[in-house]
Amino acid sequence: MPVLNDEVPDDDDFDAARVRGEFDGITPEDFVRGSDNGNPPGWLPAVRIDRLRREVPLVYVEVVPVRCDDLGRISEVGSLVRVRDNGSVERTLVKGRLLFHETIREALARNIGKDLGEIALPVIPPSLQPFTVAEFFPTPGISRFYDPRQHAVALCYVVVISGDCKPQDSSLDVQWCAIASPEFRTFLNQMDDGQDEIVRRALSWTGAGE
Amino acid sequence: MPVLNDEVPDDDDFDAARVRGEFDGITPEDFVRGSDNGNPPGWLPAVRIDRLRREVPLVYVEVVPVRCDDLGRISEVGSLVRVRDNGSVERTLVKGRLLFHETIREALARNIGKDLGEIALPVIPPSLQPFTVAEFFPTPGISRFYDPRQHAVALCYVVVISGDCKPQDSSLDVQWCAIASPEFRTFLNQMDDGQDEIVRRALSWTGAGE
Amino acid sequence: MPVLNDEVPDDDDFDAARVRGEFDGITPEDFVRGSDNGNPPGWLPAVRIDRLRREVPLVYVEVVPVRCDDLGRISEVGSLVRVRDNGSVERTLVKGRLLFHETIREALARNIGKDLGEIALPVIPPSLQPFTVAEFFPTPGISRFYDPRQHAVALCYVVVISGDCKPQDSSLDVQWCAIASPEFRTFLNQMDDGQDEIVRRALSWTGAGE
Amino acid sequence: MPVLNDEVPDDDDFDAARVRGEFDGITPEDFVRGSDNGNPPGWLPAVRIDRLRREVPLVYVEVVPVRCDDLGRISEVGSLVRVRDNGSVERTLVKGRLLFHETIREALARNIGKDLGEIALPVIPPSLQPFTVAEFFPTPGISRFYDPRQHAVALCYVVVISGDCKPQDSSLDVQWCAIASPEFRTFLNQMDDGQDEIVRRALSWTGAGE
Repeated sequence: MPVLNDEVPDDDDFDAARVRGEFDGITPEDFVRGSDNGNPPGWLPAVRIDRLRREVPLVYVEVVPVRCDDLGRISEVGSLVRVRDNGSVERTLVKGRLLFHETIREALARNIGKDLGEIALPVIPPSLQPFTVAEFFPTPGISRFYDPRQHAVALCYVVVISGDCKPQDSSLDVQWCAIASPEFRTFLNQMDDGQDEIVRRALSWTGAGE
Repeated sequence: MPVLNDEVPDDDDFDAARVRGEFDGITPEDFVRGSDNGNPPGWLPAVRIDRLRREVPLVYVEVVPVRCDDLGRISEVGSLVRVRDNGSVERTLVKGRLLFHETIREALARNIGKDLGEIALPVIPPSLQPFTVAEFFPTPGISRFYDPRQHAVALCYVVVISGDCKPQDSSLDVQWCAIASPEFRTFLNQMDDGQDEIVRRALSWTGAGE
Repeated sequence: MPVLNDEVPDDDDFDAARVRGEFDGITPEDFVRGSDNGNPPGWLPAVRIDRLRREVPLVYVEVVPVRCDDLGRISEVGSLVRVRDNGSVERTLVKGRLLFHETIREALARNIGKDLGEIALPVIPPSLQPFTVAEFFPTPGISRFYDPRQHAVALCYVVVISGDCKPQDSSLDVQWCAIASPEFRTFLNQMDDGQDEIVRRALSWTGAGE
Repeated sequence: MPVLNDEVPDDDDFDAARVRGEFDGITPEDFVRGSDNGNPPGWLPAVRIDRLRREVPLVYVEVVPVRCDDLGRISEVGSLVRVRDNGSVERTLVKGRLLFHETIREALARNIGKDLGEIALPVIPPSLQPFTVAEFFPTPGISRFYDPRQHAVALCYVVVISGDCKPQDSSLDVQWCAIASPEFRTFLNQMDDGQDEIVRRALSWTGAGE
């Protein structure tokens, strides 16, 4: 899985690649396994994506990782613990941008692999009907979801994780919290910008605590 | 898993059990593991259930068993092959009545175990929102779903089967069919009374063939 | 719309009607408009239904009535205010049992008409996929939903009400509450047996407060 | 409703407006009613959007307009008849791009107004959970949905139309077809690039022909 390095301004390489037609023979597997160039097709350099973020809504997939019992009842919700650029710690869900020419299923597999590791054994749901669509705006107060960088439309899915998770490059830890535990409220409160609301909607939709 | 024997007219035992209060201490596990009496709580003798079938709509769970690839795309749909009372052969989905005091999740686990065996390793979905509700009427033409015995409301779920299936007592075989194969149309046509429509709705809802 | 009088023990008339084949020519309209006999087909006398309530799960439809703005955002949730048999007052949603041979859509129209009046102008949703399925058990603690009388499976729908509502025979009042108002929490707390949870799931599913 | 004129290359005006901070005070109403400048905020000139179409997936809303009976059963599906740039005629659904800083509900209202007129009286659904997400790729064969111009992710909704429709600037006609009529198959076949599949999924999801 290639590291997505937003700092590399290889704008010319990118256009050159396009001109050479390297985007023509893309197969779905390219997005999951990555290409040989170190960055997958559909990836954009930092200067380009920064401008796009102010011009069009970007598509994201957002995953609520869950562990379930044999009857499919959610027992635990997973999260990533990360260090922000300013040094503070944040708790987030698994989330990533849908790349050009990537399918939603590929984006789900890629981002879960990138954040939870290659042996997480996710059960990507048979249906792509999202349980909710979270609209993130760069202006606070438009919706419950806020993203200072951009307008993003996140398709949200609950994904059962049946394997082992380990933190990847960008994370300090993968932490699970039992939804019936007294700590769960704190766990949710540590999520910013509406991600707690996404978890609440997920649990409500699944009828957790039936 | 106890055999549900609709022919046993143990009406008196049943009422006696009720009088003795044996229904009071029911736990969810009883429905999945069964009780010691050979029939689970909530089971009804044949003479009783036959009358009920003409008085109230009965709740059913109906399962479209599927095998998926790593990205969650459905590759195959499963079915049971059974011999009807009149000797003809029928192809059906996994289906069963919700018993008194049984949860929907327990009914899903119980019926999948009863029809596909104990090592089918089903991934019962985290959400109980059914992809469709099939209304079976004893009168042909009211809906696409027909059941000469009764008015039944079937909550329909797609369930990923990750283990091995083997036919149980009541079935000749468990057969899978690739949805991309030329035989799939025949496979659907061999399902009666609207069960093919349930599979079509399931595939449509999942976006199969995305 | 006939009054459903659960106290009339016309058991023999009911069986006689069945013997005479009066249930054969039922059309969907019968359930909505009612038959000439004072009770719709599918209705059961009190002694019969009381026994059924302890033998099989019964199917209910449950409606969260809402008023929306031009963009479909929920502004208000509706409720019924009723006097219980013991003289206390309760706040409930629109709810009713699915009758034998009645379709879900007919049950929705019949119960909305019965509780909100004939000029409520409900927009019954094009899809019958319920936003949640509430499992009511006669044993407290099995689920969030409790019904001392019976095991009931309620298919829950959000229905936009665009006309005028007036309380019918069985209700004191039809009351609406703005979801953004400070009173809304009290409004929810006045609902018993898990009906508040149904409203919460409805709002969560619709993304209210987007 | 301002005409969206993709041919006007007002790139400089656009950047100047951004520099002047005119995007800061945007209210949701701006997107529906339009601003004073002739083009709504979030609109992009042709040269800009053409480049974007090859760099990121764009978000679309896609509407299946339906007429229903009193019970919510779909009777007719609506469509637009348009002349393509090459002079041929096409049949399409109501569809449009989600603009920067526009909510999904605003995009639904704007596009329905733009295509069906201001007295169509759409009932925008209370829930934004789409019945399906259609992934349009510029490469044929990746999915059932093809768009030679771009990679687009279309959130698909069924919207009940209760008013009168009339063709707007860009359309020849608004045509309805009864789903039970023999012409319905032809009606679907006249839709290109997978739009017929979107209608089929909509009908399947709603249980049309229950």
